[in-house]
Amino acid sequence: MANKASKVSETVIRRLPIYHRYLTEIIDKDIERISSSELSKLTGFTASQIRQDLNNFGGFGQQGYGYNAVDLRNQIDKILGMDHTYNTIVIGAGSLGSAVAKYNDFRASGFKIQALFDTNTDLIGKSIDDIPILSYDDMKEYIIEHKIDVGIVTVPKQSAIDVINVLIETSIKGIWNFAPIDIHVPEDSDVIIENIRLNDSLLKLSYYLKESHLKNEY
Amino acid sequence: MANKASKVSETVIRRLPIYHRYLTEIIDKDIERISSSELSKLTGFTASQIRQDLNNFGGFGQQGYGYNAVDLRNQIDKILGMDHTYNTIVIGAGSLGSAVAKYNDFRASGFKIQALFDTNTDLIGKSIDDIPILSYDDMKEYIIEHKIDVGIVTVPKQSAIDVINVLIETSIKGIWNFAPIDIHVPEDSDVIIENIRLNDSLLKLSYYLKESHLKNEY
Repeated sequence: MANKASKVSETVIRRLPIYHRYLTEIIDKDIERISSSELSKLTGFTASQIRQDLNNFGGFGQQGYGYNAVDLRNQIDKILGMDHTYNTIVIGAGSLGSAVAKYNDFRASGFKIQALFDTNTDLIGKSIDDIPILSYDDMKEYIIEHKIDVGIVTVPKQSAIDVINVLIETSIKGIWNFAPIDIHVPEDSDVIIENIRLNDSLLKLSYYLKESHLKNEY
Repeated sequence: MANKASKVSETVIRRLPIYHRYLTEIIDKDIERISSSELSKLTGFTASQIRQDLNNFGGFGQQGYGYNAVDLRNQIDKILGMDHTYNTIVIGAGSLGSAVAKYNDFRASGFKIQALFDTNTDLIGKSIDDIPILSYDDMKEYIIEHKIDVGIVTVPKQSAIDVINVLIETSIKGIWNFAPIDIHVPEDSDVIIENIRLNDSLLKLSYYLKESHLKNEY
């Protein structure tokens, strides 16, 4: 299945967490089975789109019977690698870094946060929910010693470029970047970078607020 | 221009914050002018795409002369409503709420955070960077009294649905939602909701990590 999954397009991958979210809502409501047309009503994707997406991974639906919500979510868990564990560090122990370190959903997703790193000597030596805050100077060594898979970058924009360039040089496999910058990964590197664009999202909100505001004026 | 802008497609709107980000990088490097082809190299969009996008708003480029980076960013600021100020509250004064309240970029974007709201009596009465933490029970009244435009929802998934349903009933214009849930805004409501999908992003990262991991095994 892995090889099959690895051929799946990014657009399908982007929809899988959405299925995952809705299936969790369904399971929380103790609903056992769901049809592709019911999933279509929830997600807004067409039923055939949904069947196609899920068929990419071996299609677990049964004609006129629908999907077993728990089985389907378990399958998606596997596809999304949620049965794996990723040794994770957070770079930046400020308010955003603390929030990330405390956010249980991330731990639940298999991202085990081992340490935070900061240059602020007031923070180094302290800990957040029993996760130690270590000196940024020791990060590279720590990544090798503790076989760290993922670095979550929560430092300010000004330092983020340097931090990410350092991370790319290490054995780290993935970077989850919260800084509003664009990273150009060198050709020979196979580090995976996923960006959270808080500012882009806020500017989008700002645009629609302004537009509705203007509309209300006419 | 407002009426013209309001006809612009969402895909264009989504690209504007990206232009904004790159223009800021350029301006930080003291570069005065940039051509659409240079912007194309940076953003990965085609030069004609870029010219088209910017023409939506009255095209400020000059043949063989390019764009003045500062002027262009100022124009995009206006288009994105960054010259407006939005009275903002944060619901949830936990670690994520604190991080949002402390994040200067949001303030810079015109989202003025007036107060945080929480149900935790240990937090109520305290403040974060001089922003008071008030009782959630007083939120509805506060929104009316202080003409609040935007609510940023940072409460856990379990409470988020209720909070957002309460917000939708108020005079609030926009909601920035960090909870991993989907909100169905009633037909008659014109509240604008922008979601930050932290979990979706993390699951996407998890998928690609798993895939690269499997590839390395073969």
